[in-house]
Amino acid sequence: MKSFQELIKAQWRAKQFLCVGLDPDLDKLPTPHKNKPAGEALFCFCREIVDAVAPFCAAYKPNSAFYEGYGAEGWEALRQTIHYIKEKYPSHPVILDAKRGDVGHSNAGYVRAAFDLLRADAITVHPYLGEEAVRPFLEREDRGVFVLCHTSNPGAAEFQELNTEGMPLYINVAKKVSSEWNKRGNCGLVVGATYPEQLAEVREKAPELPFLVPGVGAQGGDLEKTVRYGMDYAGGGIVINASRGVIYASNGDDFATAAAREAEKLTLEIRGIMDGMPKK
Amino acid sequence: MKSFQELIKAQWRAKQFLCVGLDPDLDKLPTPHKNKPAGEALFCFCREIVDAVAPFCAAYKPNSAFYEGYGAEGWEALRQTIHYIKEKYPSHPVILDAKRGDVGHSNAGYVRAAFDLLRADAITVHPYLGEEAVRPFLEREDRGVFVLCHTSNPGAAEFQELNTEGMPLYINVAKKVSSEWNKRGNCGLVVGATYPEQLAEVREKAPELPFLVPGVGAQGGDLEKTVRYGMDYAGGGIVINASRGVIYASNGDDFATAAAREAEKLTLEIRGIMDGMPKK
Repeated sequence: MKSFQELIKAQWRAKQFLCVGLDPDLDKLPTPHKNKPAGEALFCFCREIVDAVAPFCAAYKPNSAFYEGYGAEGWEALRQTIHYIKEKYPSHPVILDAKRGDVGHSNAGYVRAAFDLLRADAITVHPYLGEEAVRPFLEREDRGVFVLCHTSNPGAAEFQELNTEGMPLYINVAKKVSSEWNKRGNCGLVVGATYPEQLAEVREKAPELPFLVPGVGAQGGDLEKTVRYGMDYAGGGIVINASRGVIYASNGDDFATAAAREAEKLTLEIRGIMDGMPKK
Repeated sequence: MKSFQELIKAQWRAKQFLCVGLDPDLDKLPTPHKNKPAGEALFCFCREIVDAVAPFCAAYKPNSAFYEGYGAEGWEALRQTIHYIKEKYPSHPVILDAKRGDVGHSNAGYVRAAFDLLRADAITVHPYLGEEAVRPFLEREDRGVFVLCHTSNPGAAEFQELNTEGMPLYINVAKKVSSEWNKRGNCGLVVGATYPEQLAEVREKAPELPFLVPGVGAQGGDLEKTVRYGMDYAGGGIVINASRGVIYASNGDDFATAAAREAEKLTLEIRGIMDGMPKK
């Protein structure tokens, strides 16, 4: 099995940078899936989206919060969705957006859940407990570990932008992840598209890390700035996530075609911006 | 239904301060539950522990990592365990140790999972995304929200003790939670027993908040200091968690009696320390 790093680099070589976020919400499901039992509705909806957008994306990012909101049934739908992707699109990595983070011996349970049972290629984690706690994730060197750095939400600055040792906390996180946590070459950072200046600053401090960039689309992030500031030809590429704008592009019978059209549009836009950038 | 605050205050009035952490691990289960299917083993083990320690504890703290490590089956065992507690011991609050934290619209899924489907009375959350992101939890004013402040793990200092605006980050978190996040009176803090000086400092800044204190027992935290530094008669009580030292006190047929004996011993020790403290 290929490592997350190998998978994502192959996607970048094929000029694929879009990640489609799977945030299934029963209240928003398109008509064809509206009246099924919860677990079946979630999986069937996600499967159609996955198939429709596959040619236009680099990766998938299921957010476990949306599945957990439906209990064990939701958990099973999450497992089915990831297994479906891994079997049908093995070149597309799955980034489980679970934002986990406990002490080491507890993280072992999350590692087993995410990487062994669910079969995700990468996961998002909180930095607050430090490298020592996150180690069970980091030790799985074939899997990616995206550490929250500067998140996309309106209130992200409350702690993330506090001044620590002459730099904002998120820069401190970026530097530590880049220089100390990334010993096995499997770390990445989550940096929101809604804060383009901060994104540029993080890229400067961590030129070699892959970035997962949410916040384009429904959250209002600027795609052009995201690409210009986030991309780095030194090796640190970007995975630009769009969720709601793609998967709920239509709530009618044409939802899958509409999602594909949105994903294709975003991918072409990203490529257009990249083509206009100076090659380093 | 009583709020988390009402439940925990009634326990404190009854001199109950111990929280029993449910960290079920199939590799450590006592002989009577060893060869059952995973989900059944987890639930049956937890149910016997719950019954055995009920007279000697204030609350239960299932850690979702341990259940998630067994997939949908584990999730169902978590649900069964919490529902069992809520039906049989309605005066014992359940603190779901899930350490969640995403942007607001994703947190809505975690809120639904923890409070509605699983029926937990309180949850642990990460502070990194700020109050605005945590709001879906905070808005459920009958439920408790324990924010990670200074955790019990060896590497906790990496970010938590960084100097921010003249104070360590964990003090900044304690002050913000106490003065801004706690508008509905439902916040608490997680402060590890393994850092007694920091615990005393946090108590000084947040005299009114309940503390969830893990790290006594297997992790080596000092019980006497935990009680002396963590308790505050201004209203902020403590919930002292012990997990492995209680639930795996024996791995033979007598595991439930052994767990009860450990829980009783801890509870008597805590009361003994409190009786020796000056009344404020």
